[in-house]
Amino acid sequence: MNNLSDFNCELAFITDECRKYIKYGKAADYIPVLAKADVNKLGVYIISKDNEYFYGDYDDLFTIQSIIKPLILLLALQDAGVERVRSLVGVEATGKPFDTFNYTDLALKSEHINPMINAGAIALCTLIKGSTFQEKTNRLLDFTRKLAKNDSIEIDTTVYLSEKATGNKNRALAYMLNAYKMINEDVEELLDCYFGACSIKVNCKDLANIAFALAHCLPNEIINEDDARFVNAILSTCGMYDGSGEFALNVGVPAKSGVGGGIMAVVPFRMGIGVFSPALDEKGNSVAGKKILETISKKMQLSIF
Amino acid sequence: MNNLSDFNCELAFITDECRKYIKYGKAADYIPVLAKADVNKLGVYIISKDNEYFYGDYDDLFTIQSIIKPLILLLALQDAGVERVRSLVGVEATGKPFDTFNYTDLALKSEHINPMINAGAIALCTLIKGSTFQEKTNRLLDFTRKLAKNDSIEIDTTVYLSEKATGNKNRALAYMLNAYKMINEDVEELLDCYFGACSIKVNCKDLANIAFALAHCLPNEIINEDDARFVNAILSTCGMYDGSGEFALNVGVPAKSGVGGGIMAVVPFRMGIGVFSPALDEKGNSVAGKKILETISKKMQLSIF
Amino acid sequence: MNNLSDFNCELAFITDECRKYIKYGKAADYIPVLAKADVNKLGVYIISKDNEYFYGDYDDLFTIQSIIKPLILLLALQDAGVERVRSLVGVEATGKPFDTFNYTDLALKSEHINPMINAGAIALCTLIKGSTFQEKTNRLLDFTRKLAKNDSIEIDTTVYLSEKATGNKNRALAYMLNAYKMINEDVEELLDCYFGACSIKVNCKDLANIAFALAHCLPNEIINEDDARFVNAILSTCGMYDGSGEFALNVGVPAKSGVGGGIMAVVPFRMGIGVFSPALDEKGNSVAGKKILETISKKMQLSIF
Amino acid sequence: MNNLSDFNCELAFITDECRKYIKYGKAADYIPVLAKADVNKLGVYIISKDNEYFYGDYDDLFTIQSIIKPLILLLALQDAGVERVRSLVGVEATGKPFDTFNYTDLALKSEHINPMINAGAIALCTLIKGSTFQEKTNRLLDFTRKLAKNDSIEIDTTVYLSEKATGNKNRALAYMLNAYKMINEDVEELLDCYFGACSIKVNCKDLANIAFALAHCLPNEIINEDDARFVNAILSTCGMYDGSGEFALNVGVPAKSGVGGGIMAVVPFRMGIGVFSPALDEKGNSVAGKKILETISKKMQLSIF
Repeated sequence: MNNLSDFNCELAFITDECRKYIKYGKAADYIPVLAKADVNKLGVYIISKDNEYFYGDYDDLFTIQSIIKPLILLLALQDAGVERVRSLVGVEATGKPFDTFNYTDLALKSEHINPMINAGAIALCTLIKGSTFQEKTNRLLDFTRKLAKNDSIEIDTTVYLSEKATGNKNRALAYMLNAYKMINEDVEELLDCYFGACSIKVNCKDLANIAFALAHCLPNEIINEDDARFVNAILSTCGMYDGSGEFALNVGVPAKSGVGGGIMAVVPFRMGIGVFSPALDEKGNSVAGKKILETISKKMQLSIF
Repeated sequence: MNNLSDFNCELAFITDECRKYIKYGKAADYIPVLAKADVNKLGVYIISKDNEYFYGDYDDLFTIQSIIKPLILLLALQDAGVERVRSLVGVEATGKPFDTFNYTDLALKSEHINPMINAGAIALCTLIKGSTFQEKTNRLLDFTRKLAKNDSIEIDTTVYLSEKATGNKNRALAYMLNAYKMINEDVEELLDCYFGACSIKVNCKDLANIAFALAHCLPNEIINEDDARFVNAILSTCGMYDGSGEFALNVGVPAKSGVGGGIMAVVPFRMGIGVFSPALDEKGNSVAGKKILETISKKMQLSIF
Repeated sequence: MNNLSDFNCELAFITDECRKYIKYGKAADYIPVLAKADVNKLGVYIISKDNEYFYGDYDDLFTIQSIIKPLILLLALQDAGVERVRSLVGVEATGKPFDTFNYTDLALKSEHINPMINAGAIALCTLIKGSTFQEKTNRLLDFTRKLAKNDSIEIDTTVYLSEKATGNKNRALAYMLNAYKMINEDVEELLDCYFGACSIKVNCKDLANIAFALAHCLPNEIINEDDARFVNAILSTCGMYDGSGEFALNVGVPAKSGVGGGIMAVVPFRMGIGVFSPALDEKGNSVAGKKILETISKKMQLSIF
Repeated sequence: MNNLSDFNCELAFITDECRKYIKYGKAADYIPVLAKADVNKLGVYIISKDNEYFYGDYDDLFTIQSIIKPLILLLALQDAGVERVRSLVGVEATGKPFDTFNYTDLALKSEHINPMINAGAIALCTLIKGSTFQEKTNRLLDFTRKLAKNDSIEIDTTVYLSEKATGNKNRALAYMLNAYKMINEDVEELLDCYFGACSIKVNCKDLANIAFALAHCLPNEIINEDDARFVNAILSTCGMYDGSGEFALNVGVPAKSGVGGGIMAVVPFRMGIGVFSPALDEKGNSVAGKKILETISKKMQLSIF
């Protein structure tokens, strides 16, 4: 990978080869507006220490969805410290879907309410500073802009309102957290913050920049090293929902997917990658997106294992 | 048992003997107002075809709580018919606590969302006639009055407001039902109806009268025979929460308990019984209440098995 | 139903009407020999205090399978007493299939290891007297003959050997009971006893006689009243596997089904009924068998609710 | 870490500092012979590309227990290829203890029968070449010797016989796998192989050598790179039982623990580490062992995240 134009060429080839996997997935349909996504979109953006590579619909905007979870975790770590984060949420894998209640007959399995499942991410929103939930949402938006180096990032109001109107499973999760005294906040306001943050619009380059920051590649103070390790470790075990084991085998780097079709992959000390393809497998991960990352990882020897 | 005063004497003796079991239970504490109940209260009322027997605090008022569930089921059967009831809720035991989500990793176990667990009872409220939820609540209140032959029955507003303020596990259950499209109604209004109905104040005599009606003992048209069989059958398998098997062995009649301390027991074709004692076991059943019913059942040979 | 021949006529009509439900079920196939059952067989036998009614293949032999469970429970009650039975097994419904492990992440749910699921029945075999497991099996066989008033009842060796060869889920259940110290016996010998007992061959009349004994209808000392109540109570909540709630609604009497196609129904103080039809629903209950019992129950007003 | 004697000094200091954590654990007691372990033993061995460091009881022998699981997986990959391995076992975390059945009401969750839980490791033994299970065991023993560069490694017969005599939960797991047709082999012979392999005696140096081989540090053909990546990836998500998330955060390298008190840690491209301390936490991981690894990781910057 010594020549910029050479690898861009190869990246184009890889991406086009992976296009055939689109047909094995379908767009998320739990809210109507997501179901309208154009499943033929396919893009990738790579930022390494020396170069940037990109191809396809890398410029298209989509909602960040669950990829906001590592940012919620990061900001909660910055705002409240690791002790408060750890006392609120667990860090073990659930072996279950992302919207799991993770509930035995008698109690929440709090050790497994981790920051990468909905319940854990919603709980962490309470640790983000701000006297109102609007303020918390704005801080998450600003934080996203800063990590992505892109001040034009905005919230997609249509998606936000759609999530708010139909997100009753998240509502149920939040009331459950409240019933078990994990959180004390007003549930509707808290959900507004979460729904708003999930509706932030990004593109592949934005995700690549965020991942680059998580990869310990920036000399600046934006993310401290311990916080990044915390996030990368939990992305490695839980970032791809209940398909994290498979992803570790096939790709071998910390990553986070969202039902908007994005995947953000962190290659520690080397690079950040963003891919976009809205056709999802049954676990909620972009099918062609995973395949592009797998191919790049083998080609560039990215696996950390 | 051919002499009224004789059996009243024996009932007094039985009840006083069972008083010692109070110490093995404690008042419900999931809402503050219930925790204030006087656990030393103990009362019983029996209505047979020929006589009435009673002793102790049979006149004290307490909230009906889950004992409203068979009445919700009955009214739903009357208002919507057995097909609609059966298509909405299941009839199998859960093997789990009353507030169970009964949820696998991927779906609600709808067959086990039965009318005697909270989720099933909340769902059934949607089948009760009324253009507003206030109307539905009023119909449940009127129905309770009619079955109990007591027009002075009212809702305890303090308990109602307390349930509404703190009932977030029920809120979570209701949003879950909505997320899985079991119900389409406005969740907060639906819960208002359920919380209101659970807060109806009754005494032992009221419960005995309702049970007497369920026991096929009335010549009137209040409860049709098939509906009563439906209710009694499901009380027998699920009426005492996750202690229904034990109760079937020890007492052997359909019954329903509530966390207010009441138990309503139906002896088909023979009698209706109401007991009251607010000290509950860990499953939510009145400890001394169960013991009184067990002793009466053995003495009077009430078991239907 | 005042005339013997009249009701026999009606019973024939009912049975033939229910024949059409055969097509909704299929023979058990977990062991090869059961899969060979002739699904067109259909028989019924009723023993009341005054009369006997029968129709169809009431004389055909089939293996008793899970219908041996109430007899294991009865004999364990006689041999070891109610305290030892209760300390070994629970009595609550599981809300799960008959071969459930009923296992949380950390422990067996012992309260729900009831005598009507495989794990509970296997455990109870340890309480039956006999210095060897062969002796225990023989005592179960003799007990069955005595209750059925039929000395010619035998074990089907082919079925027994087939169960023994392929019954690895029961083997897993038994080793689990041992690992959790619920039982200490040699697992293979214990399973021999259980597999042997399940392979006892009976016909509808045998089941009707056993049910008649459980119905408190015999003046003799074969089954004591308390033991019969124990059995009937648990049949009512758990006898038809995870379809017990539905059966209580539709038929309303204690009953036990077996994957051989038999159902034994107890009408307390009135009669015993045996039906046979090997086409099972997905829960393991005879489809046409249930329908015959439902029709008879409505016709004769048998429901205890 | 540029000077051998310097870091050995530091390692001694670290190890002695971590000795205080012993008191928070206790020896495994599920088989009597393990309960006799001397919990005061504490040792560590590090093999890097340039140096070896060691301290304490690094020479003491203990049984390898679950640390054999990555070796079973490796040998199965070599003997049967990745396709057969992947078709037999899953790779997702369970969110449950190591001896989980991972069983829903109706089926095994086969995707979560991974090679690091007992059920998965037992299943993989069927893929190891050998016409008898004795041969399979011998191949695992030889493979362990080769990776550890230590021909004197033997099986501890006392532990093996104790596992065989008391390992009924593993027996239950194996019969369950058989009942669900995941395996067809004779269960007792298969368990002999597994119990034998778990009883292999190793020391810290042996574990360090095995880890060094997994770390892609050997120029030889013992472990191919893809197989090592497979193993390291699954160790990262599932190697420390239900504490793998916590370990990823605190230490950040692929590792496997055993109830004998050992932990083997793989630092890809850099080093292999073995630690030994038999006092375990409630999840079965060595308490002081984890703490030593955490301290070394922070000191040497070993985290791959």
